Amino acid sequence: MTYCVGVMLDSGLVLASDSRTNAGVDQIANFRKMTVFERPGDRVIAMLSSGNLAVTQGVIALLEQRSQMNQQNIWNAASLYDVACLVGETLREVHKRDGPHLMQHHIDASAGFIVGGQIGAERHRLFNIYTEGNFIEATTDTPFFQNGEVKYGKPILDRMISSSTGLSEATKCVLVSFDSTIRSNISVGLPIDLLCYERDSLKVGLQRRLGDTDSYFGKVRDQWGAGLKRLFSELPDPHWED
Amino acid sequence: MTYCVGVMLDSGLVLASDSRTNAGVDQIANFRKMTVFERPGDRVIAMLSSGNLAVTQGVIALLEQRSQMNQQNIWNAASLYDVACLVGETLREVHKRDGPHLMQHHIDASAGFIVGGQIGAERHRLFNIYTEGNFIEATTDTPFFQNGEVKYGKPILDRMISSSTGLSEATKCVLVSFDSTIRSNISVGLPIDLLCYERDSLKVGLQRRLGDTDSYFGKVRDQWGAGLKRLFSELPDPHWED
Repeated sequence: MTYCVGVMLDSGLVLASDSRTNAGVDQIANFRKMTVFERPGDRVIAMLSSGNLAVTQGVIALLEQRSQMNQQNIWNAASLYDVACLVGETLREVHKRDGPHLMQHHIDASAGFIVGGQIGAERHRLFNIYTEGNFIEATTDTPFFQNGEVKYGKPILDRMISSSTGLSEATKCVLVSFDSTIRSNISVGLPIDLLCYERDSLKVGLQRRLGDTDSYFGKVRDQWGAGLKRLFSELPDPHWED
Repeated sequence: MTYCVGVMLDSGLVLASDSRTNAGVDQIANFRKMTVFERPGDRVIAMLSSGNLAVTQGVIALLEQRSQMNQQNIWNAASLYDVACLVGETLREVHKRDGPHLMQHHIDASAGFIVGGQIGAERHRLFNIYTEGNFIEATTDTPFFQNGEVKYGKPILDRMISSSTGLSEATKCVLVSFDSTIRSNISVGLPIDLLCYERDSLKVGLQRRLGDTDSYFGKVRDQWGAGLKRLFSELPDPHWED
């Protein structure tokens, strides 16, 4: 399984992905699911992959390979919309090539990407690219996308995230959302790849891989767990009159 | 959809269910999903229904109808295990009667029950009865069962509930779990039917229907939401050195 979150705030973007892949419980491995294309002063593009690993790796490999060529590519696309189109087309291409072979063996070939970033003078944007290659864009009404094992970590995002949430607050919220998901589903696992992008900076603000021994993530987990327990003890007890 | 939770604590039981049923987004209604059989001093049996409403209502109706007869029934069963068997058998009976007709029209006939309570000198117990009529029993290792839309509200139960959790704490936790689920899935809705049972009391301790205007539930929701916001602001900000 996988857990990916992309958040679009007035102040920038937060993207995060877990690292666990599994094909059955006896075939578990770690793969980075975040890919970043950065040319400071010009563009930052971050992609979060979910779904069939061979398919998503195929898409990333083709995007990277073609980024040296003259055709439209990730480095010369004029807008993040064009990048989303490019990712969608490449996903369709890999599906066309590999899909029928996977289908013969009833293997799920579905895959998706959350793509966020900013190019030149354009505003920062966030897209959710479906396995069919079409996509939607985040708006102020719906400022975040999730992929993979989305439900466990959604309530805290629903409660806390709006467009006006600050970058730091949103980052903490995303980390708590991951902590909740990892606790409830063993097929989502550390390390977490985290990226924060400050609007109009045109460079990666913070990129960090958070593993078991990361002291900051440890502090967030511990303080959050203890804080929740305190919150519960402060809630009024249920002594209703009948 | 539905959301049901049953928790078995050293100190007793907490059971809760929502009231929304839907067959498509244009056919939404409220039905009570909690059924209680109580004879103070002898037994308390609470059942939470989920799944196909015609099936679960059929099971409850047969259990009630037969409770007046001489055969084994809900009032003369010697143990909660026997009650779980009875519910499972009755579920199989309704499936046998209605299942093939539903299958013809590709209608999902699956249904399940969480059954908790205590009979006479036996300890209090909690069972999860599957749509096939078989069942499992809660233990100190796994002290709660959920049915229906289970994922949104699971992290808070995972974090907070163990056998040694007190009845009040667990009740508050269950209510927060419902609040999270209702916020994230519109097919789960108020009112919540809530029952608390204190071990060895052999009577219902607290039974309450919590709707939109319930002042206690309102207080829990507001205080919890505000408390989470405060918790986030208290978490250390992510200013890592690179």
